[in-house]
Amino acid sequence: MKLKVYADRMSQPSRTVLIFCKVNGIDFEEVKVDISKRQNLSPEFQEINPMKRVPAITHGRFKLFESHAILIYLASVFPGVADHWYPNDLYKRAKIHSVLDWHHSNLRNGTVPLVQNAALNPALGLPLNLQAAAEAEKNVSSSLSKIESVWFRGSGKFLLDESQPSIADLSLVCDIMQLEVLNEKDHSRILGPHKKVQQWIKDTKYATRPHFDEVHNILFRAKARLQQQRSRVNANDEAEPSLKATSQSKM
Amino acid sequence: MKLKVYADRMSQPSRTVLIFCKVNGIDFEEVKVDISKRQNLSPEFQEINPMKRVPAITHGRFKLFESHAILIYLASVFPGVADHWYPNDLYKRAKIHSVLDWHHSNLRNGTVPLVQNAALNPALGLPLNLQAAAEAEKNVSSSLSKIESVWFRGSGKFLLDESQPSIADLSLVCDIMQLEVLNEKDHSRILGPHKKVQQWIKDTKYATRPHFDEVHNILFRAKARLQQQRSRVNANDEAEPSLKATSQSKM
Repeated sequence: MKLKVYADRMSQPSRTVLIFCKVNGIDFEEVKVDISKRQNLSPEFQEINPMKRVPAITHGRFKLFESHAILIYLASVFPGVADHWYPNDLYKRAKIHSVLDWHHSNLRNGTVPLVQNAALNPALGLPLNLQAAAEAEKNVSSSLSKIESVWFRGSGKFLLDESQPSIADLSLVCDIMQLEVLNEKDHSRILGPHKKVQQWIKDTKYATRPHFDEVHNILFRAKARLQQQRSRVNANDEAEPSLKATSQSKM
Repeated sequence: MKLKVYADRMSQPSRTVLIFCKVNGIDFEEVKVDISKRQNLSPEFQEINPMKRVPAITHGRFKLFESHAILIYLASVFPGVADHWYPNDLYKRAKIHSVLDWHHSNLRNGTVPLVQNAALNPALGLPLNLQAAAEAEKNVSSSLSKIESVWFRGSGKFLLDESQPSIADLSLVCDIMQLEVLNEKDHSRILGPHKKVQQWIKDTKYATRPHFDEVHNILFRAKARLQQQRSRVNANDEAEPSLKATSQSKM
């Protein structure tokens, strides 16, 4: 029975699942669900995931949604997946669950509203909301600091001081990658202070090459498009709005 | 090595872990971390959980935080825990992970701000924020509808049409129980339309008796105190503010 992955590569958890499958040589079919065309709301897709979100999978008659649950399932049922992705050791596994749970209510609670309000709204015909973005930026910065201080205490390249990546590394790094669509100034200000996070992104990219960049290509193209749009706006307007300027103006 | 559970019974994930331990006859020591006294911010507790949140556990030298991760760990290492709590079957287990992941970014994203803004703020010397509460109420109501339509499709008493509860049932029901501290009118309006959810709460309570009520006692006492406070305010003021009235006044 063939695995089908319903995904939109513009969604960070979709990319996580796709990269995981490719890196681990899992035979699967990618089914594109274009969120910008609202295909996730179609009756056909709701048969796959009644919550109307990507990613989702079918494996024979079995259906599953939520990217963390999907990664754990894939790591558990496909025998070719190396142990470091989701170790059999109960203690290591528990720590990975803990990181993934924390991810939901911390890092991801920041990255999603930040990218939406600071970069994607104009593409959807909505105004930028720099105040909401500035709030979200605080959550992202605080989350990145915690990642470094709690899970990179030793010399390991990956979370929990491991020498090889787990599903938690891939999941969190793909989430942070979404910040690529911010303008350069904002991106540098947010990622700049976090040297360990920067190195971790590089290490995760390298450990999952060439699939990481290939699956992220759509994001790099979106980044280039947004930069062009901003340049055009700036040529007509005065200066590019930056979150920092907005949050300072509120002081 | 003895299990220590660091908990504040006013926190719903703390209660989940405590009930789980008691129902399954796990030998543990409950260590109270009083959030109202900011004990979660103490250097001692940060040694247990650097994220400063309850619940957290220690089991010998092993430390863990995040309630879902803790429940999975306990179900996996304590041999006395019945299979239905966290089944060995990979397909059932995957579905439980999916519910727990969904919980983070849906139901819990509603219950926490709803209870905070509609009920707890005054106890902390902050004003009620009925507009934020009305927004959160929408999330809660939508989440309860989805739980009924997606996970209670058949005749099973518990999530995923099972006949016995899993860690997902306990986790979500304890979260919904936090709504007890709302005023009666708001509570009835939110829970009233969801007959399956009401029955599910009763069934989970029954399946985990007498521990469910015993661990929730603190919440029932808080509810009574808040009701008294509201009665006093109402005697001096005109009428008790209700979220419904607020959301209607915005139309």
